[in-house]
Amino acid sequence: MLDRVFSYIDEHYGEALNDLVKLCSQPSISARNEGLTECANLVADLLRGIGAKVELLKVSGAPPLVYAELTSRSAEKTLLFYNHYDVQPPEPLEEWESPPFKPSIRNNRLYARGVSDNKGNIVARIWAIKSILEVAGDLPLNVKFVIEGEEEIGSPHLPEYVEVYGDKFKANAGIWESGSKNAKEQLTIYLGVKGILYVELVAKGPSRDVHSASATIVPNPAWRLIRALSILKDENENILIPGFYENVKPPSKRELEHISKIEFDTEKLKENLGLKQLLLGLKGLEALKRHLYAPTCNICGLLSGYTGPGSKTVLPSRAMAKVDFRLVPDQDPDDIYLKLKNYLREKGFEDIEVKMLGKLYPARTPLDAPIVRATVSAAIKVYGKPPVVYPTMAGSGPMYLFVKKLGIPISSTGVGYYASRAHAPNENIRIKDFIEGMKHVSAILYEYAEIEEK
Amino acid sequence: MLDRVFSYIDEHYGEALNDLVKLCSQPSISARNEGLTECANLVADLLRGIGAKVELLKVSGAPPLVYAELTSRSAEKTLLFYNHYDVQPPEPLEEWESPPFKPSIRNNRLYARGVSDNKGNIVARIWAIKSILEVAGDLPLNVKFVIEGEEEIGSPHLPEYVEVYGDKFKANAGIWESGSKNAKEQLTIYLGVKGILYVELVAKGPSRDVHSASATIVPNPAWRLIRALSILKDENENILIPGFYENVKPPSKRELEHISKIEFDTEKLKENLGLKQLLLGLKGLEALKRHLYAPTCNICGLLSGYTGPGSKTVLPSRAMAKVDFRLVPDQDPDDIYLKLKNYLREKGFEDIEVKMLGKLYPARTPLDAPIVRATVSAAIKVYGKPPVVYPTMAGSGPMYLFVKKLGIPISSTGVGYYASRAHAPNENIRIKDFIEGMKHVSAILYEYAEIEEK
Repeated sequence: MLDRVFSYIDEHYGEALNDLVKLCSQPSISARNEGLTECANLVADLLRGIGAKVELLKVSGAPPLVYAELTSRSAEKTLLFYNHYDVQPPEPLEEWESPPFKPSIRNNRLYARGVSDNKGNIVARIWAIKSILEVAGDLPLNVKFVIEGEEEIGSPHLPEYVEVYGDKFKANAGIWESGSKNAKEQLTIYLGVKGILYVELVAKGPSRDVHSASATIVPNPAWRLIRALSILKDENENILIPGFYENVKPPSKRELEHISKIEFDTEKLKENLGLKQLLLGLKGLEALKRHLYAPTCNICGLLSGYTGPGSKTVLPSRAMAKVDFRLVPDQDPDDIYLKLKNYLREKGFEDIEVKMLGKLYPARTPLDAPIVRATVSAAIKVYGKPPVVYPTMAGSGPMYLFVKKLGIPISSTGVGYYASRAHAPNENIRIKDFIEGMKHVSAILYEYAEIEEK
Repeated sequence: MLDRVFSYIDEHYGEALNDLVKLCSQPSISARNEGLTECANLVADLLRGIGAKVELLKVSGAPPLVYAELTSRSAEKTLLFYNHYDVQPPEPLEEWESPPFKPSIRNNRLYARGVSDNKGNIVARIWAIKSILEVAGDLPLNVKFVIEGEEEIGSPHLPEYVEVYGDKFKANAGIWESGSKNAKEQLTIYLGVKGILYVELVAKGPSRDVHSASATIVPNPAWRLIRALSILKDENENILIPGFYENVKPPSKRELEHISKIEFDTEKLKENLGLKQLLLGLKGLEALKRHLYAPTCNICGLLSGYTGPGSKTVLPSRAMAKVDFRLVPDQDPDDIYLKLKNYLREKGFEDIEVKMLGKLYPARTPLDAPIVRATVSAAIKVYGKPPVVYPTMAGSGPMYLFVKKLGIPISSTGVGYYASRAHAPNENIRIKDFIEGMKHVSAILYEYAEIEEK
């Protein structure tokens, strides 16, 4: 049966690609609330097109959440797909070789903002199910889709959606939004996410920009901000907020053993990013371990005063930094936020405004969960080799709502590859990976339908 | 005779104002090479209109310098006016109440970018001379104008202009570009300028912006820049570059005595800028002394990563700071530039690119120079009270080219006031000050014509 599904996919992927081009043509930038409802409607239409029962769920102040159900005539188990239809802002625009919302096919790749993160996966999943239905007339499992519109800004309303509609979302297992091939062309599967705390720090000076000659006697908020930032981390990348590491759970022996078998190509990463060396000169397993298990304190943005060409002699009235902290189990973003504020106050920076722009908790599913075994065996069928399974990704997502609140173990797959440039200019996927991604999802349905729960 | 000149000004200031509106309607932003030649032509037309012999001087790569001469039939002495027709960039545009290049009269003030710095003074000077010519038929002095188009970016080509055309510029004394009334409605006169070194610091990270989850192992250039900036100055505002203060000449006893009589209204300044306190809690004479005699290290601009609304989880590929150092006699901007680069290199920041965007040397004219006495006595005639004479301003300008290279002692006057907002949104002058400014310039011509050289 699966072979016939694969053949169907090979014959019809052009239509799936058309759907993806249409979806990527619709900007859906949650950071500035741009095009979200329009995009949700497009996704709902695609789901209705394969016979799903679709609802546009709403909570106050949030873009719609696209919820869909497809019922099997023959099976009891339910698999849930979590995705998001929103994308990162496309800036800096001048670095795109084709406009971010005019999808462009070049060299067997499709370029567009969101094509890898996460619209390619939405369309691949919908088409995997459509292919099974077309070939077999029924699904081996019940399927649910939860597709939200605020993942890229930290899913601020998903907790409320889960609170209100959580009963609908119940399932035996879930597949997370994304996955990609590494530089060795192995599919990578992630079983967890880090948490995140995203803050904006603002220092204020004179009520308006003044002539920089006044720097003799007028306090400059840019200096103030720099001093505040400079006490957050030392030169060895230790985060200096008291208690920051308090709840960090070190990796288990099982996990360490598992990741010690994962190859980490330091040289390729360096080459890909044009770096002389990685942070702290890290290499191989040490780099991987830090990448998966270390929390971070990162500057996403800095802005103050005059930033155009040439020179303007100004003392700015305001300075701003956007900072994100990636958190690991069992760090708690609310707790870290309080610790950050207390630390700044204790160090005399009570004048610095600290605004929380987003938060997410960390979460992980065990390496031996049935859904993990099913994704792995399905991957071997499609890709001809085992995938690389990571106990967690370094990125974040609202996985804890499913894993912890609803008790759904989560695995993942996706159509990206090592140079997909998620969150960056010239985001793209390879068409071959898109086709294989559809096949992998359809294989997961059959594998998970048949697997023994422990 | 002067009374008749004053009457002429009172009767004709509306025409002068029209000329000023026209001049301010022409953008002339040297920082981005916008509208400079157009503006030079407008200034040249105004000068030709009063019978001056005008030349548009050129050196390679520079906007034209407007040079003009008016010859007296009866006098030997020559007075030179230095001005500039370029203006600062108008950003942030959203803070302007009327568009920066559409001059707007409200509450007896004229609002426009450049109206105070420095186009109001150009027009006031031209009209002062026109008024004398109309009333008296001859000037009491020969007059020269040197009006450049790059002052706001640090006059990068003026040294070459002076090198090539310096013989033309020779004069017995000069009047600098600007002056304004303080909060006590006293005219302020400045006899010197600070030097400046303007640099751009750039830190580079990965070859493109990457997902902020990679902050575990990818170096972030924003952190690097912050570390580099944080070693430039300590918390007590001491600049930490070795040898930075080496050539700083402390104020003379005469100067200290002189400035101790100048009132410095700490409270008004704080109120005007919405500050709780000045830098380091300075007040009164101590603040004034620092303002006039201390060099600075100031951040004019900061830029890295995502700076729009909301949150974008990115690790930026680049971070930039614009920094200006105001320098006092006998600091040398080239010397400070080398010391800065050496310091950063010694501290391990050889990866930070340090680009010099501009430099100027400091310069001062003695308190008892004849042109200073002439400006003071002329001011008493026009304003009915003595002006406040500052041994130097806290700002910079290419004064050293005239004072040191050409040996021309320099005084100043101008049509600004304490809330003129030079370099900031809603730059403006009061029409009353514009009229008095024209009168002051005409009085200076007569006073300086008659004064005894020492």
